[in-house]
Amino acid sequence: MFGIAILGATGYVGTEIIRILTQHPQVNIVAVVSRSFAGRNFSDIYPNFGKVMDMEISEINIDALCEENDIFITALPHEASNEIIPALVNKGKRVIDHSAAFRFKDKATYETWYKSAHGMEDLLELAVYGLPELYRNKIRNSQLVANPGCYPTCAILSIAPLISRKLVYNTNIIIDAASGVSGAGRKSDLAYSFCETHENFKAYGVTNHRHTPEIEQELSNLAGEEIFISFTPHLMPIKRGMMCTSYLNLKDSGLNSENLYELYCEYYKDEFFVRVLKPGTLPEVKNVAGSNFIDISVNVDKRLNRAIVLSAIDNLGKGAAGQAVQCLNIMLGLEETTGLKHPAFYL
Amino acid sequence: MFGIAILGATGYVGTEIIRILTQHPQVNIVAVVSRSFAGRNFSDIYPNFGKVMDMEISEINIDALCEENDIFITALPHEASNEIIPALVNKGKRVIDHSAAFRFKDKATYETWYKSAHGMEDLLELAVYGLPELYRNKIRNSQLVANPGCYPTCAILSIAPLISRKLVYNTNIIIDAASGVSGAGRKSDLAYSFCETHENFKAYGVTNHRHTPEIEQELSNLAGEEIFISFTPHLMPIKRGMMCTSYLNLKDSGLNSENLYELYCEYYKDEFFVRVLKPGTLPEVKNVAGSNFIDISVNVDKRLNRAIVLSAIDNLGKGAAGQAVQCLNIMLGLEETTGLKHPAFYL
Amino acid sequence: MFGIAILGATGYVGTEIIRILTQHPQVNIVAVVSRSFAGRNFSDIYPNFGKVMDMEISEINIDALCEENDIFITALPHEASNEIIPALVNKGKRVIDHSAAFRFKDKATYETWYKSAHGMEDLLELAVYGLPELYRNKIRNSQLVANPGCYPTCAILSIAPLISRKLVYNTNIIIDAASGVSGAGRKSDLAYSFCETHENFKAYGVTNHRHTPEIEQELSNLAGEEIFISFTPHLMPIKRGMMCTSYLNLKDSGLNSENLYELYCEYYKDEFFVRVLKPGTLPEVKNVAGSNFIDISVNVDKRLNRAIVLSAIDNLGKGAAGQAVQCLNIMLGLEETTGLKHPAFYL
Amino acid sequence: MFGIAILGATGYVGTEIIRILTQHPQVNIVAVVSRSFAGRNFSDIYPNFGKVMDMEISEINIDALCEENDIFITALPHEASNEIIPALVNKGKRVIDHSAAFRFKDKATYETWYKSAHGMEDLLELAVYGLPELYRNKIRNSQLVANPGCYPTCAILSIAPLISRKLVYNTNIIIDAASGVSGAGRKSDLAYSFCETHENFKAYGVTNHRHTPEIEQELSNLAGEEIFISFTPHLMPIKRGMMCTSYLNLKDSGLNSENLYELYCEYYKDEFFVRVLKPGTLPEVKNVAGSNFIDISVNVDKRLNRAIVLSAIDNLGKGAAGQAVQCLNIMLGLEETTGLKHPAFYL
Repeated sequence: MFGIAILGATGYVGTEIIRILTQHPQVNIVAVVSRSFAGRNFSDIYPNFGKVMDMEISEINIDALCEENDIFITALPHEASNEIIPALVNKGKRVIDHSAAFRFKDKATYETWYKSAHGMEDLLELAVYGLPELYRNKIRNSQLVANPGCYPTCAILSIAPLISRKLVYNTNIIIDAASGVSGAGRKSDLAYSFCETHENFKAYGVTNHRHTPEIEQELSNLAGEEIFISFTPHLMPIKRGMMCTSYLNLKDSGLNSENLYELYCEYYKDEFFVRVLKPGTLPEVKNVAGSNFIDISVNVDKRLNRAIVLSAIDNLGKGAAGQAVQCLNIMLGLEETTGLKHPAFYL
Repeated sequence: MFGIAILGATGYVGTEIIRILTQHPQVNIVAVVSRSFAGRNFSDIYPNFGKVMDMEISEINIDALCEENDIFITALPHEASNEIIPALVNKGKRVIDHSAAFRFKDKATYETWYKSAHGMEDLLELAVYGLPELYRNKIRNSQLVANPGCYPTCAILSIAPLISRKLVYNTNIIIDAASGVSGAGRKSDLAYSFCETHENFKAYGVTNHRHTPEIEQELSNLAGEEIFISFTPHLMPIKRGMMCTSYLNLKDSGLNSENLYELYCEYYKDEFFVRVLKPGTLPEVKNVAGSNFIDISVNVDKRLNRAIVLSAIDNLGKGAAGQAVQCLNIMLGLEETTGLKHPAFYL
Repeated sequence: MFGIAILGATGYVGTEIIRILTQHPQVNIVAVVSRSFAGRNFSDIYPNFGKVMDMEISEINIDALCEENDIFITALPHEASNEIIPALVNKGKRVIDHSAAFRFKDKATYETWYKSAHGMEDLLELAVYGLPELYRNKIRNSQLVANPGCYPTCAILSIAPLISRKLVYNTNIIIDAASGVSGAGRKSDLAYSFCETHENFKAYGVTNHRHTPEIEQELSNLAGEEIFISFTPHLMPIKRGMMCTSYLNLKDSGLNSENLYELYCEYYKDEFFVRVLKPGTLPEVKNVAGSNFIDISVNVDKRLNRAIVLSAIDNLGKGAAGQAVQCLNIMLGLEETTGLKHPAFYL
Repeated sequence: MFGIAILGATGYVGTEIIRILTQHPQVNIVAVVSRSFAGRNFSDIYPNFGKVMDMEISEINIDALCEENDIFITALPHEASNEIIPALVNKGKRVIDHSAAFRFKDKATYETWYKSAHGMEDLLELAVYGLPELYRNKIRNSQLVANPGCYPTCAILSIAPLISRKLVYNTNIIIDAASGVSGAGRKSDLAYSFCETHENFKAYGVTNHRHTPEIEQELSNLAGEEIFISFTPHLMPIKRGMMCTSYLNLKDSGLNSENLYELYCEYYKDEFFVRVLKPGTLPEVKNVAGSNFIDISVNVDKRLNRAIVLSAIDNLGKGAAGQAVQCLNIMLGLEETTGLKHPAFYL
């Protein structure tokens, strides 16, 4: 059994990590840490964990934590990250972090889109973008893994085959997306109250959502040239799950949905968590919610010679906690799917 | 008071027409007709109408109906339309129809996308596309008004100013949309059951949804040249309301959101039901659900010189029943907003 | 046209009053008052009202308001009521108030259940409990109407016939209820956030909900003896609407559902907003949401000689704003149903 | 590893059993059987199971199944049960059945409430009511376990301590309940369509729901005398989960919530899946949905000397599939919690 500490354990991402790890046969939660709730039992905050995970929540005490643990998952606000992550890294600990700070190769990108100073730029070189399907080998021995954003995970994996195989033009790429409300985190905010959110649908972050440069960075890497995209997220009245609908112009007019299905199957043939759907089948959020899967369907509009790619993940699963555990398994040398082979909730 | 008969009164569109007309000060419902429920009281089928609209539902008897009424709203399946509408028109009656049959100038378009014979092609010349913001003058004296589809209403109005003023390129137009479940009508279908739909989100009709040619016809008219679009609808777990998110490449790189806001305000300055939202404000479904308004926000992504246009309507309101009543007012020579000046539900 | 000012206009009750009054043919909104949003347009706060109600929200200025208005609807927090209502009454103005302060005959009841000093006890004698079906004549000329709570409205009307006709034992009365989330008001509270509320159901205020003494006071009045009840409300994941399920032991074992149906019909024969459902038909929230109706079904369990009464209202409609407008109509000498004869939303 | 076959695998209960068993370390699914979908892969019907459970669904072939399996879980319509279960039992196989047929000691009770002939009465003596907290020892060696209904599980466990310890009067027991829509099963029925169910709440089966006699049978057993109850279920717009709110009059006026909390803790001290909540804490559906737990809170209303007991389970979990697996573990001699120690979904 490997021990792990979770810092920022009482947000929705933290709690989902704990939900997964309580069922993980080879990982043991050694500490759950949260400033807001230190001293209380985890199952007092989340009573769904009663009798399953009743551990006392502890204060952030880096020295004490570092004596007991070698690996940490952090899901903290930026300021807290700033304080804690360098300290952990300096003590030689391994970290899987959920903030945006270490996702960018270029600190300027972070500062432009997040409109604040980075402050931990010396760690950037160390950091690996924690998308196992693209960076598995780097993740394996990494000391600092930047767990990707939910939208980037859903978007990048869904069109990576088209981009990297250079089947599409790199302009006019549109990624339209919708997410459940848990993506906004656990907070008392009128905009996310039931009455303001239920029976509603709206876009947000139009032209300036912070996940845009993250998607662009990775697509550019795959393409070998700079790619700019339109990315528009929407908020939908479900708890968890998200979908991306992407539009890309095909170079070759001879390709059909069947051809691209085969290409995707081949591209992802070793990826357990990527399910390429047969032509005529489309992803649905209920088929991935609660799981670590991404479902992808690629469709060719022959009239327009355009690929329309649909992809769905659980924003808390493959988009956050599930992916973190997948990285953790890789980093610990475990079978990558350990503790993650459950089906989605559906109901 | 003007009398009106509603044929196909017990579907969701029919019932919304009745909801609006029970509050209309100058129109009187003379008959509600439905094969499925003839002989029963309307409020037995929809108990929300108890004490408000308890009229007995009648059989379709064209002769009897034509003696009492001069104007009809029809919301019928295609086969029933086929039988009834020509009969009404031949007797000199005026009809506002909700089927797709009379929306296309070219019967071939209908037959290609709907995969069935048209059968009423001789009426096509008579028909006017019932979008008052574009065809008000034709609607006024029309005998046969084809009430537009919900998605086309939401999409066309949202980008008409850009297309008709020739500010955008007519290629690479993407319209991504999501609708509430009432758009599928009132039916016992597993796919629309609560457990299969709630906490879910999925696309449908990818590359081949029937509203595509309807949108293309009207945009082409506005552009003066043939336009093809990508249109992808999604099903979201709300009862009513829809949103379109459209992407168009601007020709002139000097335009910003403020400029386009002014253009839209000017373009729609006489349109009561079009609310152009100030830059920085985005439409939300709850702001239009239950009303006849369309809310539109136009945003320029300066990085990409692309307009991202958001628009929201109630699929049963401006997308169906509200629009039908708006047409009805015009046809009857009434003030166009009569009975339609209520705010959206919000809650 | 009568003028009216609404104080506390931007809560959910206030906004629903405004929604109803914008459609009211004989009442004119003269002022919408809110401390939080003074100076802004009402439709900036609730964009669903754009082009329908764009009036600027004003500060509370009692002198200015009293010069323009003779009648006020107040939906304010207790402290604000304390300050404002006595001032209005002293200037001879008429008030329909939504707080609990004036609902009790006995200030001690208020202080026991609300755990705070009353402070306006000298107004209690003036106050009339604003349930038109029980107190229409007193409301007509009242200067101060205490609009009832939502649960009390739903509960009292549903069992008043059984109690007042002395058909049931006055012990062992159980009222089990569930409400939509709008009953909690418009607030940023984690407990009412979407993710904490959706796909959830829970009881609250078990054994001590503040609506208990209000129900007991009115039932005791009807019975002519003191009645104590069990009242348990639950929170359900819908926006608006509520239901009460009440259990009462019948004295006479010869009564069946049909007999009680007739009794209810007779008892409420002049009440437009009370719909007594035929035996075999049960209320549903969607049949009353958005309306001023209460739907009631009374069922006899012959095995146990017990009446099970189901009743549904819109907590914001007959449970708050609709009822206030009904009282307003009575106070102004208007036809009681004016502006309130719309069907429920259903969809 | 033990093998098991699931008959009626594609309903919501069947699929939840499979969801649990795919994570069960000591049970292996040998066959999934369904008439409707025989020949297709399970994950074609439920794509959430893709890569987790892709087994082909087989026809019901009793001889073939009996060669491979010794234990069966059946979730079949009554007619199919009638045909299959006697055949399995006659071949010496063990069965955990989800129908109502074997839940009653007295076939007359079944026939009265279910209004159809029983037809398998000779198996009644063999059958054990599969509520482990009450019948663990009988279940262990039983050949035929009748898995309890969801409402009975939630109701019986919540008040068993009060009844069996004779702390309450056995008259005037009220059980008011609400369930998510999955309780109605997977079907194309207008009444359970999204638009008819969402934002709605209604009672059903008032005075005559079939779970009434099941609850009464078990409470009578515990009391040692015949008990009759009022039971009223409601349908609420959530997918899974249910709650019971029960009212019982206490004999002894000296008891408070703390006393009963201790009693319950003591009564259920060996029951892993029963979580007795501390006074002041109330169950919520989200804390049990997706799990095999039942959360119970017992509250004394000192004013009325009445106990109000709240209990929540997942209707598909402890109310069906989870409980079946719990019985299965007992029957197989496994640790009872195997494969069932996961927390509820919460999100």
